[in-house]
Amino acid sequence: MKRTAYRLEDIVTRFGGSVLGNGGVLISQIATLDSASAHQIAFLANSKYRAQLDSTRAGAVILGAADADATTLPRIVCENPYAYFAKLSAFLNPLPHAVAGIHPTAVVGDGANIAPTAQIDAHVVIGDGAQIGAHSVIMAGCNIGASVVIGENSRLYPRVVVYHNCVLGNNLIVHSGVVIGADGFGFAMDEGCWLKIPQIGRVVIGNDVEIGANTTIDRGALDDTVIEDDVKLDNQIQIAHNVRIGAHTAIAGCVGIAGSATIGRYCRIGGSAGILGHLQVADYVEISSFTLVGKSIKERGSYCGIFPFSSTKVWRKNAAQLRHLDELADRIRQLEQQIESLKN
Amino acid sequence: MKRTAYRLEDIVTRFGGSVLGNGGVLISQIATLDSASAHQIAFLANSKYRAQLDSTRAGAVILGAADADATTLPRIVCENPYAYFAKLSAFLNPLPHAVAGIHPTAVVGDGANIAPTAQIDAHVVIGDGAQIGAHSVIMAGCNIGASVVIGENSRLYPRVVVYHNCVLGNNLIVHSGVVIGADGFGFAMDEGCWLKIPQIGRVVIGNDVEIGANTTIDRGALDDTVIEDDVKLDNQIQIAHNVRIGAHTAIAGCVGIAGSATIGRYCRIGGSAGILGHLQVADYVEISSFTLVGKSIKERGSYCGIFPFSSTKVWRKNAAQLRHLDELADRIRQLEQQIESLKN
Amino acid sequence: MKRTAYRLEDIVTRFGGSVLGNGGVLISQIATLDSASAHQIAFLANSKYRAQLDSTRAGAVILGAADADATTLPRIVCENPYAYFAKLSAFLNPLPHAVAGIHPTAVVGDGANIAPTAQIDAHVVIGDGAQIGAHSVIMAGCNIGASVVIGENSRLYPRVVVYHNCVLGNNLIVHSGVVIGADGFGFAMDEGCWLKIPQIGRVVIGNDVEIGANTTIDRGALDDTVIEDDVKLDNQIQIAHNVRIGAHTAIAGCVGIAGSATIGRYCRIGGSAGILGHLQVADYVEISSFTLVGKSIKERGSYCGIFPFSSTKVWRKNAAQLRHLDELADRIRQLEQQIESLKN
Repeated sequence: MKRTAYRLEDIVTRFGGSVLGNGGVLISQIATLDSASAHQIAFLANSKYRAQLDSTRAGAVILGAADADATTLPRIVCENPYAYFAKLSAFLNPLPHAVAGIHPTAVVGDGANIAPTAQIDAHVVIGDGAQIGAHSVIMAGCNIGASVVIGENSRLYPRVVVYHNCVLGNNLIVHSGVVIGADGFGFAMDEGCWLKIPQIGRVVIGNDVEIGANTTIDRGALDDTVIEDDVKLDNQIQIAHNVRIGAHTAIAGCVGIAGSATIGRYCRIGGSAGILGHLQVADYVEISSFTLVGKSIKERGSYCGIFPFSSTKVWRKNAAQLRHLDELADRIRQLEQQIESLKN
Repeated sequence: MKRTAYRLEDIVTRFGGSVLGNGGVLISQIATLDSASAHQIAFLANSKYRAQLDSTRAGAVILGAADADATTLPRIVCENPYAYFAKLSAFLNPLPHAVAGIHPTAVVGDGANIAPTAQIDAHVVIGDGAQIGAHSVIMAGCNIGASVVIGENSRLYPRVVVYHNCVLGNNLIVHSGVVIGADGFGFAMDEGCWLKIPQIGRVVIGNDVEIGANTTIDRGALDDTVIEDDVKLDNQIQIAHNVRIGAHTAIAGCVGIAGSATIGRYCRIGGSAGILGHLQVADYVEISSFTLVGKSIKERGSYCGIFPFSSTKVWRKNAAQLRHLDELADRIRQLEQQIESLKN
Repeated sequence: MKRTAYRLEDIVTRFGGSVLGNGGVLISQIATLDSASAHQIAFLANSKYRAQLDSTRAGAVILGAADADATTLPRIVCENPYAYFAKLSAFLNPLPHAVAGIHPTAVVGDGANIAPTAQIDAHVVIGDGAQIGAHSVIMAGCNIGASVVIGENSRLYPRVVVYHNCVLGNNLIVHSGVVIGADGFGFAMDEGCWLKIPQIGRVVIGNDVEIGANTTIDRGALDDTVIEDDVKLDNQIQIAHNVRIGAHTAIAGCVGIAGSATIGRYCRIGGSAGILGHLQVADYVEISSFTLVGKSIKERGSYCGIFPFSSTKVWRKNAAQLRHLDELADRIRQLEQQIESLKN
């Protein structure tokens, strides 16, 4: 496939910033400083990696004012090189447009309302009364339950499952293996056996949300599970029933969020972290990878709880003491008392 | 959809308990105290939330004897309000019945034995010699391997995979993305390369089990992996080969159980916990979220091992010391000796 | 199914080792010492389990020279009983051969190149220009993206998804629910909203790799994500964009590896461990279950960082002190100074 190339000057006309050096350089793709070639543009988002500018074979570079003189290559100087790179890359690498139509192997239920511009691929199943909005793409093998609503311009990669009644917004990207709206984990113990509690809430997802591969979002028990606008979820995240995740929050892979937890807006949660049920996390909270949040966080800030790793030999010694920490603290208290009496 | 409504008195006739207030109130659905409206019944399972009774607009409430006078609303007084709610909700929100028949896009292998009352949806694949019991529902895109046995009245949501030879009981609920019977993780190192150890055991699952979305249960290496009756598994749990999970045990999301571990009956395991291979866990054991069980647990009780989180600044200081805990303990011992000699 | 049986002597002719006792015993299957019957052979890989030899009803046993006299049963004595067992079991339990052909319900894109000996099962979708090598098996419901290359003799179990452009080698085993090549988690914050960074790299997987159920491997952001030869990945592992995993490394279930981390060759990573982004891990490193690797590991060896579990009551006391560890260390320092001045 021959790629279209753009002059550096024309890129700046479209996306802002200013050109230093030859504005006529032709750029057809983005690449890293390490691997870029003559018709590719690289970016420097962090001055720490400035040394890589010396050896790059990129045709041009995107960088901030502070690094504007760090190279003589043709370059775009802008305020936020990482965001600039994101915008330019999205322009050079657009998602394919929806190809309107329903594949003959797809199975569509009664009363389903599929926009004429939507793309429904092979072996998709769409339940009774479901709605698929304009220009949305439902890729092969997806299963859309009865009465589900999917907005416009959304893309479900192959093999996504959305259970009945869930509501998904516009401009979503949902990756393969995602399950939206399975039953939450709710049981009551009764005479030695578990009784299932029907999960009659929905999952309601806003606009501009991306959901990574094999992530699961359970439907609410009675009320809904809610994912607000512009939330970004990585792979293999588990979101339990009745969780609410505030707008613009980003969550890394393998995080587990227990039932009825409420996460604020603009939070960032590191990989494999966990949040216990019924807790509240304020806006603008950062949680480190592998941290279990065991009580509500009321103030913005950065939170952590990780056992620092070491060689197994050293760990064994330290971990052994960890089991006696309360006793060590007692011994310190006794020492302090003894010293006091010795002093007197 | 118009819902059927039931008089409070008739509910009590069916499920027990006693009515206080107007027994003629019509109830068609369950809801939370917060969101319930005039024809909905809410429940109070914990006296702690009693204050919510004041503002609820529920038509009626389910509560225990201790809270019987906490509201003047029409109410059902019973021993276990949470179990009562579960039973009533299951009555008001029944799972749809199997609609007998095999969808024309399903592919059924030679010698498969599908009960005439079973429902086989679109794009399902059923292997040679597999058996599907009466009233069971195999939803779209499921893949049932050769010689698999599935009991009666079980429901597999879309896109479940069951590998060959596995045996599943009656009244199961298996959510989307579950994989039952994939190969366990078994390799022998030989001259610098891994040799695969064929996994020739099965997965055998009892009755009344529920399995959450994207959970995986590996087949046994030589003997079987076994899940006993009434086990409840949440989403994204990983159960390795030759594990046995005792009846009535409930396991929360993202838990990992390593090979040949044996979990007792009536255990409760918190989210993202782990159990190492070949360990035994007694009956009635509770394990906290995020806890790694590193040796067998022989007595019932509650077990925990979580690094408590804090602000990242405080964590840094404490974690730095953690790496020197053995040294700190040494220094305390020396102090104790020095104090002793000073005293003498 | 009647199994073929082999004389113990003939097994030794084929796989090496020497026979003690009756070499004419007929063996048709492998089993554990506990469950083996007369035509089954068991193995003793660890002298620790020697006592089980007394009660086994196996027809024969595989064991090492050190245990050669621990039983009078017919037996094969060899150097590495576990590897011997693996080889013999693979011989007795071969994977079924590819049955050449494309199922009529499969959908194959323009210009796809499928080897005539490959097996393409029901409801598979193969994208434009994809290549499937000789004797490879693509089981039901798999989705192979445009321009994907899959080598020879590889087996994808039902419902695997491989996104466009990814490259997979020979002799792979990929279990159900695996997603290869979904977008990495890359966003730039711009004026309060997230901008998606197109993920234009690929996933490139070598030969002899096995990937467990529901594991996800993201495509590279700009360059590729790389899995080298003979890597073994268990279930529900998350591998982020631009990770590289060295040959012969084995990773247990639920591990998360963050973006651009590089793992060496012959590493072993325990279940639910994590590795932060951009780190390097040397060759021959062992990482314990539940350990978060927070900085690069430059030397081979064994590393650990786990909070040891205990009864919840004991844990509460110790964990409370953990929040004051820095303060405890201060108090020890003060005690040391006070003792010094008392001594003088």
